[in-house]
Amino acid sequence: MQLLEDRIRRDGIVREGGILKVDSFLNHQMDVALFAELGKEFARLYEGTQINKILTIEASGIGIACITAQQFGCPVVFAKKSKTKNIAGDVYTSKVESFTHGKVYDIIVSKDFLGPRDRVLIIDDFLANGAALTGLIALVKESGATLVGAGIAIEKAFQPGGELIRSQGVRVESLARIASMSPETGVVFCK
Amino acid sequence: MQLLEDRIRRDGIVREGGILKVDSFLNHQMDVALFAELGKEFARLYEGTQINKILTIEASGIGIACITAQQFGCPVVFAKKSKTKNIAGDVYTSKVESFTHGKVYDIIVSKDFLGPRDRVLIIDDFLANGAALTGLIALVKESGATLVGAGIAIEKAFQPGGELIRSQGVRVESLARIASMSPETGVVFCK
Repeated sequence: MQLLEDRIRRDGIVREGGILKVDSFLNHQMDVALFAELGKEFARLYEGTQINKILTIEASGIGIACITAQQFGCPVVFAKKSKTKNIAGDVYTSKVESFTHGKVYDIIVSKDFLGPRDRVLIIDDFLANGAALTGLIALVKESGATLVGAGIAIEKAFQPGGELIRSQGVRVESLARIASMSPETGVVFCK
Repeated sequence: MQLLEDRIRRDGIVREGGILKVDSFLNHQMDVALFAELGKEFARLYEGTQINKILTIEASGIGIACITAQQFGCPVVFAKKSKTKNIAGDVYTSKVESFTHGKVYDIIVSKDFLGPRDRVLIIDDFLANGAALTGLIALVKESGATLVGAGIAIEKAFQPGGELIRSQGVRVESLARIASMSPETGVVFCK
């Protein structure tokens, strides 16, 4: 998506070690006018798929998910990162390995808000190693809902997550796919 | 706001100990069509105040904040709950005492995204003891930005936060103010 690629080129900051800072518009300060355009693009890509629920994960996916949900006319459910074992058996749980923080945490969704009647689009801001997306897909499967696909703002296509998840037959639509990046060359997008 | 009060009466669940569960529409599953109406009401209340930034706190404030920001045509910044000491001196920090979890945590906002040119509306889903709101107000003051006011979806008016913060001269607009509640009586709103 040209608009997002242009924005990343203009306002993204590439650091050593494969770090892309987009916190001026995507995941700390949030440009909701941009999000509206991302939402329209997800709606175009997933037109006719009868999505009736959007699933995301706290915190930085929530903004894009909510504004995208306006396009689909459906609610959003966000998976919570759980620090404590949930006592009641009323949640779906899966594990996410955070490469950034070097630890494994549980994510949970209440059984009240995901189930066999749901046709789910997963929305997230980033896809790199695919840890969060893999955890969200596991929640959808556990719930008996239908996974229609995933909509990602920025995919680091030089990391293995996208290929891994697509090879499992999951539809993944990323609006900006980064082929390579470095502080010297900046960001190079996939053709 | 009648629409929100009706929704709380219909879908809110009151538990012992002053707990109101609204996770079917507000803070786990999120009804973005409702959020759009909340956003319009905040825009009406704060009309003409030249708000150019909305500040909220992760995670459950982000959805309402983003959809409200569409009304104001401004970006959202969300304060992050910090587990680790930030090494760089490039963030504003304040402390929030969580009554739910019984501990104190730091919240941070990058200095890049809040400053003297900003006229800030703080948005959050709940106001009870006022801990989060007090922390957010401290961040705004530290940044030199102008605090226009706060917009809260649900205020537990039987807890001290709202009175405390209004007594400091801060404008607080809550769309549903709960006078009392119990599993027996349900929710009683302020007149």
